[in-house]
Amino acid sequence: MTARVDRLRETLEEPLLVTNPTNVLYLVGFKSSNAALLVEPDRLRLFADFRYANAAHEVEGVEFAETKRDLLGDLAGRLSGRIGFESAFVTYAGFEKLRSGGLDLVPRPGLVEALRATKDERELDALRRACAITDRVYERLAEEPFVGRTERDIAWTMDQLFHDEGSAPAFEAVVASGPNAAKPHGRATEGTIGRGETVVIDAGCTVDGYSSDYTRTFATGPLPDELKEAYAVCIQAQAAALERIKAGLTGLDADGIAREIVESTRFRGTFGHGLGHGLGLEVHEAPRMSQESADTLAPGNVVTVEPGIYLEGLGGIRIEDDVVVTNGGIDNLTNLRKDLIEVG
Amino acid sequence: MTARVDRLRETLEEPLLVTNPTNVLYLVGFKSSNAALLVEPDRLRLFADFRYANAAHEVEGVEFAETKRDLLGDLAGRLSGRIGFESAFVTYAGFEKLRSGGLDLVPRPGLVEALRATKDERELDALRRACAITDRVYERLAEEPFVGRTERDIAWTMDQLFHDEGSAPAFEAVVASGPNAAKPHGRATEGTIGRGETVVIDAGCTVDGYSSDYTRTFATGPLPDELKEAYAVCIQAQAAALERIKAGLTGLDADGIAREIVESTRFRGTFGHGLGHGLGLEVHEAPRMSQESADTLAPGNVVTVEPGIYLEGLGGIRIEDDVVVTNGGIDNLTNLRKDLIEVG
Repeated sequence: MTARVDRLRETLEEPLLVTNPTNVLYLVGFKSSNAALLVEPDRLRLFADFRYANAAHEVEGVEFAETKRDLLGDLAGRLSGRIGFESAFVTYAGFEKLRSGGLDLVPRPGLVEALRATKDERELDALRRACAITDRVYERLAEEPFVGRTERDIAWTMDQLFHDEGSAPAFEAVVASGPNAAKPHGRATEGTIGRGETVVIDAGCTVDGYSSDYTRTFATGPLPDELKEAYAVCIQAQAAALERIKAGLTGLDADGIAREIVESTRFRGTFGHGLGHGLGLEVHEAPRMSQESADTLAPGNVVTVEPGIYLEGLGGIRIEDDVVVTNGGIDNLTNLRKDLIEVG
Repeated sequence: MTARVDRLRETLEEPLLVTNPTNVLYLVGFKSSNAALLVEPDRLRLFADFRYANAAHEVEGVEFAETKRDLLGDLAGRLSGRIGFESAFVTYAGFEKLRSGGLDLVPRPGLVEALRATKDERELDALRRACAITDRVYERLAEEPFVGRTERDIAWTMDQLFHDEGSAPAFEAVVASGPNAAKPHGRATEGTIGRGETVVIDAGCTVDGYSSDYTRTFATGPLPDELKEAYAVCIQAQAAALERIKAGLTGLDADGIAREIVESTRFRGTFGHGLGHGLGLEVHEAPRMSQESADTLAPGNVVTVEPGIYLEGLGGIRIEDDVVVTNGGIDNLTNLRKDLIEVG
């Protein structure tokens, strides 16, 4: 853990007040919903309210001080001088509160997030285990009957399968069938799954705090030609991206590889989200691969690769793997078949 | 829904840009993770990115415009003039982005949250149904064996019971036994529940978007005298608060009613959190009842009433009901026994 704080210190021009709970967890292993870590050249101070005081006392290598529940208001009175703050996390009201104490605040967004984007071996191990569980869960899911069951019932089956495998869902599973699958982020509804539809299932689990995030698209019997064709294009777009993603590529260019393929077909304009996102302590983190991304891929990044095609009124396709970016290419953590799986 | 927007308009001194997704949902019934609603005297504009465009087109009474995924950056280029923003939700980085377009931004925290604190009949109905389910789930839980099972296993049982009752958990259930129960927000661990311990179980479910939030403390066989006494004090503290809470009381005074009782006993200093919080579309919302609260209770507020006593190394007690605040007192939505329930 100390190594992480030391790496952070190398990037700092002034002390940094870390208040994003995930960043605090990453740096010193302390889990809470309301804590702050002040990183100075030779000091490391942890602040949290009563609820977390016992646990905070056990954190090694930090000086702990208990605060009021109003953490930022409390810190405004304790701290002084020039301090960086996590401006992509702290609200404007929080900023005003901190500033009221006379602090000279410098917005420093994304410093810890940038470190978190590169996974170390322990983190990769947790992600591998999460992916291995998710592989098994999707394999078991493919043996389930689908037709006549509600989307919510399938989502519950996913929860049960993750539990059976000793894990827990990383997020509420998306189960989107028929026209509902045309919504990139359709939630599981009470709607019943019919025959000849695609069913997009987006789910993952958490192991030691690290999450997987997979999507597979199942077919309930023979599909209309347009959906079959969309599936083939989506697979091709993903294969091209998996083939060419490596360290040094920009998130913009990575996205472009898959997008170009979709855009060159009759499905132009239907891939309505980015190619993928970083994966770790949060299900969505740096780096991003999209047409709006300013990130560049680096060795040790773990990202999703998930092109999608959404056809209003008809259905949708999305296929998502989790991969480690390396210098030469990728290490795909997802070991699942990709041909169109027919379910009953 | 329009009535809600109209009530909001009455509180505005300039147009308000609503970006908290829960507030957007409350005002116009549109669910997304990335949308904005611009409330002007005679216009109501909704902004969201591609992923939500189809759903957004179906929202009645709004003019919809599709934006980039970078919603605030996009809005900075579209909007002009003096605009209020939700400063308790928008990050400092988001504020900088909005401001870059030359907008004259006025921090307006908590305006929609203040409306949300007073529930209408439809909202109360959803909360009543969530509480009725939670009553049944806790009754069924009391019939389960506890000793020898892990906390996580009991948490999973809660998930299953909520699912059986046609609902879903509102949050990850807290199951904290033995010394772990001395942490006010202990998470369920792989630790095994022993005999003669307290087990604090904090769980709830969501119905039509509205959440319940209960806590009951079970005993696995006869307890040490200190825990038995703590249970009696906690019940007494809660009973006093339930007896005296009504509209017009401040959150500070409401908290004081229960706190005074705990403080007058040998358990002085062990009630380490506020008495309760509002409940609705979010599990924690306005108003708050605590020593740091500036809120005053109003008719139609729905709040938790949850004193706790935490004894390091020994265990903890918390008892939590969900109540509607009325002019004359409360309407308790929780219908569960409160004597110490022994489980096997």
